[in-house]
Amino acid sequence: MQTPWDTIFAARTQRITSSAIRELLKVTEQPDFISFGGGLPAPEAFPIAEVAEAAQRILREQGTQALQYGATEGYRPLREWVAAQMTSEGVPTHIENVLITTGSQQAIDLIGKVLLDEDDSVLVESPTYLAALQAWSVYGARYLEAPADERGMRTGALKKLLAQRPKLIYCLPNFQNPGGVTLSLARRRQLIEQAARYGTPILEDDPYRELRFEGAALPRLITLESARQEQHTAPYNGNVIYASTFSKVLAPGLRVGSIVAAPALIHKLVQAKQSTDLHTPTFNQMLVYELAKTGFLKRHAKVIAKMYRERRDIMLAAMQEHFPEGVRWTHPQGGMFLWVTLPEGMDAGELLKTAIAQKVAFVPGAPFHPNGGGANTLRLNFSNATPEQIHTGIARLGLAISEQLGTHSKALAFA
Amino acid sequence: MQTPWDTIFAARTQRITSSAIRELLKVTEQPDFISFGGGLPAPEAFPIAEVAEAAQRILREQGTQALQYGATEGYRPLREWVAAQMTSEGVPTHIENVLITTGSQQAIDLIGKVLLDEDDSVLVESPTYLAALQAWSVYGARYLEAPADERGMRTGALKKLLAQRPKLIYCLPNFQNPGGVTLSLARRRQLIEQAARYGTPILEDDPYRELRFEGAALPRLITLESARQEQHTAPYNGNVIYASTFSKVLAPGLRVGSIVAAPALIHKLVQAKQSTDLHTPTFNQMLVYELAKTGFLKRHAKVIAKMYRERRDIMLAAMQEHFPEGVRWTHPQGGMFLWVTLPEGMDAGELLKTAIAQKVAFVPGAPFHPNGGGANTLRLNFSNATPEQIHTGIARLGLAISEQLGTHSKALAFA
Repeated sequence: MQTPWDTIFAARTQRITSSAIRELLKVTEQPDFISFGGGLPAPEAFPIAEVAEAAQRILREQGTQALQYGATEGYRPLREWVAAQMTSEGVPTHIENVLITTGSQQAIDLIGKVLLDEDDSVLVESPTYLAALQAWSVYGARYLEAPADERGMRTGALKKLLAQRPKLIYCLPNFQNPGGVTLSLARRRQLIEQAARYGTPILEDDPYRELRFEGAALPRLITLESARQEQHTAPYNGNVIYASTFSKVLAPGLRVGSIVAAPALIHKLVQAKQSTDLHTPTFNQMLVYELAKTGFLKRHAKVIAKMYRERRDIMLAAMQEHFPEGVRWTHPQGGMFLWVTLPEGMDAGELLKTAIAQKVAFVPGAPFHPNGGGANTLRLNFSNATPEQIHTGIARLGLAISEQLGTHSKALAFA
Repeated sequence: MQTPWDTIFAARTQRITSSAIRELLKVTEQPDFISFGGGLPAPEAFPIAEVAEAAQRILREQGTQALQYGATEGYRPLREWVAAQMTSEGVPTHIENVLITTGSQQAIDLIGKVLLDEDDSVLVESPTYLAALQAWSVYGARYLEAPADERGMRTGALKKLLAQRPKLIYCLPNFQNPGGVTLSLARRRQLIEQAARYGTPILEDDPYRELRFEGAALPRLITLESARQEQHTAPYNGNVIYASTFSKVLAPGLRVGSIVAAPALIHKLVQAKQSTDLHTPTFNQMLVYELAKTGFLKRHAKVIAKMYRERRDIMLAAMQEHFPEGVRWTHPQGGMFLWVTLPEGMDAGELLKTAIAQKVAFVPGAPFHPNGGGANTLRLNFSNATPEQIHTGIARLGLAISEQLGTHSKALAFA
C-alpha cells in the first residue's frame, strides 16, 4: 500500500501552517508589482565586492578549514568576536556564552526546542514576529499577550501575566517586527525587574539594532540586566537570552546569527543544534568574521541605515499625502517596518484583495496576533522598495484603502 | 531571582545527550595523535580552486541573489538538477518532490519533527547512525532493531518488526555508517516489499553512494520501489524518502543536502523547515549547483573514491598484520568506515582508554545500538588519516587490543 501521509504526520505537524507572508511573496513576482509585504533587505546595499574579496582570501589561506566540518558551537574566532562585542557593551561575556546559529530563525527554534513543553506559555508583545509564533506553536506553545503601543510592550500588565508563569518572555526591543516601535528605557527597566522577580528568561531578539535612523541607542535588555547582577565577571549568567543576526547588516543569504546566554542554556542549545544541522556552514561563519573583525560591518550598517531612513521618510510622507483620514501608523526610528491601523471594522485581508488587483501588496496584521484580533491592521516594509516604488505603491495603496473605505462606509450605512 | 535553568528545560531536553564522537574529537587535537574516531572527509580532496572560481563567478554575475533570502524549498536550479538526476535513475521526479536541506542531518531532524510523536517507533538497522538516533530521541522515538550483517540489514525479521507498526524505517543501504556494509540486492527487494505491505515509509539515507571502490552500484531503494509503482510519471508518489548530501563529494562545511519524496511529505517538510532556519544559505546552494551542473562533482567523486580505496586497503592490510586473533572486521566496498568486533566479553570503552594513552582513537560501538549491546564493537574511519597515519595508528591499536586482551584473559583465568 501507499503511505497514507495525511494520517501519519505527528500531532505537532497539524500545528504547522504556512506563513501568509510566504504565500504572498509568490503572487508579487509579476512585473510592475510593488510589494511592501516581504521582509527583505535592500539588495543594492549588499557589499558584494567585499564578500567576494573575503571569500577569495579565506579559500586561499584557510580553504580546507572553510570547507570542513566544524564545531557545533561555531567558528571560534567569530564566537570570540561576539563575546568581545558584548563585553564592550557591558555584558561580561566569555566564549562559553556564545553559540553561532544558522540565522536568527534557528535561535528561535532551538530555544523553543529546549524550553517548551506542550501547553507551556510564552509571553509575547502583541503584535509580534510571526515566524516565532509558528516555530513555538510546533512545540505546543500557548501565548500570553502584552499589547504594545508606540513605546513598545506595555509593561503595566506584566505582573498579572507573569503570575501565570510563562516559560519565556519574547521581546524585540528595537524597531520591532512588525510594529516598528521601540521599547522605552523606563519600560526596559520594568521588564527586566518583573522578569527577575519570577526568574523568567527573556529572549531579546535584536536583529535591527544597528539600523537606527535617529535618536540615541537605548541599552540592550541584557546590558541592563547584567548591571543588576551580583556577578560582574564573565561568564554572564543572567536571565536574558540575546539573539542577534548578520542578516540585516551583511546579507541574509549567508544565514549566520548568534545567541549570547547563560552557559547552562548554551550547553543545552548546542546539544539540540547538534542533532538539528550539526553546525552552521563553516565558510559562511568565516566570511562573516572576516568582515566583522575589521569594523567593516559596523561602518556598513551606517550606509544601510541612511538608505532605509530615506525610504522611511518617503513612505511616511507618501502616506500623509495618499492615505485617507482615520488611518493611523507608527513612526519607526529604525529597522525595516511600519505598522498601519485602519479604521475600526475594516478588514486588512479584504483590503489586500483590492490592493493586489492594483498591483501593490502588504501583510495583513491578524496573523501577528497569536490569540486573534488585529483584523484592521497591516505591516508595511520600506527597505526593499526603491523611492520611486514607494511613491507609486503608497499612492496605489491609498486608493485601495479609500475604495475599500467607501464600500465599508456604504456597508455601514446599509447596516 | 536567577533563572533556574536546570528545572525549566522541556521534558524532551532531558533526552538530548552529547555525542560520544563529539566529546572524543576534543581529546584528539594533541600533536602526534592519530584519530580514526571522527567522520571527516579527507581535506586534501576538497576542490578549493573550483569552489573559489565558482564563488567569484556567482558573486560577479548573481551577487544580489546569492546574498538575499531565498525560498524555503531551495534554489530552483539546484532542485531541478536533483530532479533530473533522480529521473535519470528511474525515479520520475518533479521539482515538487525536492527539498534542499542544511546538510543531511537537517533532513533527518525535519523528518523526525514531521513524523514522530512521543513513543512512536522507528525501525533501524543495528548498529546505525548515531546522530539519527539522537535527533529522533528528542521527539520521543523508540527503536525497533533489525540487526545487520555483511549484507546489511537482515530482512528476515522485518515481518515481525513491521507488525509492531513503526512510523518509519531507517536504512543506509550503501557502505553504512557505522558498519561499512552494503545492503544486498535481494534484501533491497525484500525491504521494499515488506514496507509496501504496511505502507511504512523508508528513509533511504545515502551519503556515500558515489564513493564506491569496487563492484557494480546497486539500485537505490527509491528506484526499486518506483518500478513497483503503478504511476510511472512525475511527481514520484511512493513510500521512500531519499536523502542525499553534497558533504562527501564536495565539502561538508557548506552544509547542503537534499530530500526527494512524495509531494505531500515535501509540503510538510517545507513548512517545518520554514520555522527552523527559513532556508538553506542561498550562496552555498548556488556554489553546489555551479559545481554539479558541469558534471565536475561526478568526476571528482571518482578522485575521492580512489583516495579512500587506497586508505581502506592500507587499513585492512595493517589490521591483518597487527590485530590479534579473535578480532573480526567488515570489508567495506566504499564509504568512510569499517566496523570491528572484538572477542566476546571485551569492552571497547575500556579499550579506548588504553588506546588514547597510546595516542590512537576510535569510536566505541555501543552508542550505535539504540537499545543496548555492542559493547565489544567499534568503528574506524579510514578517510581522514594519511596512509602513514593509518600504518602507525593501526599498529598502536593492535598493541592496545593485545594488551587489553591479556588483561582480559587474565581476568577470565581468575574468574
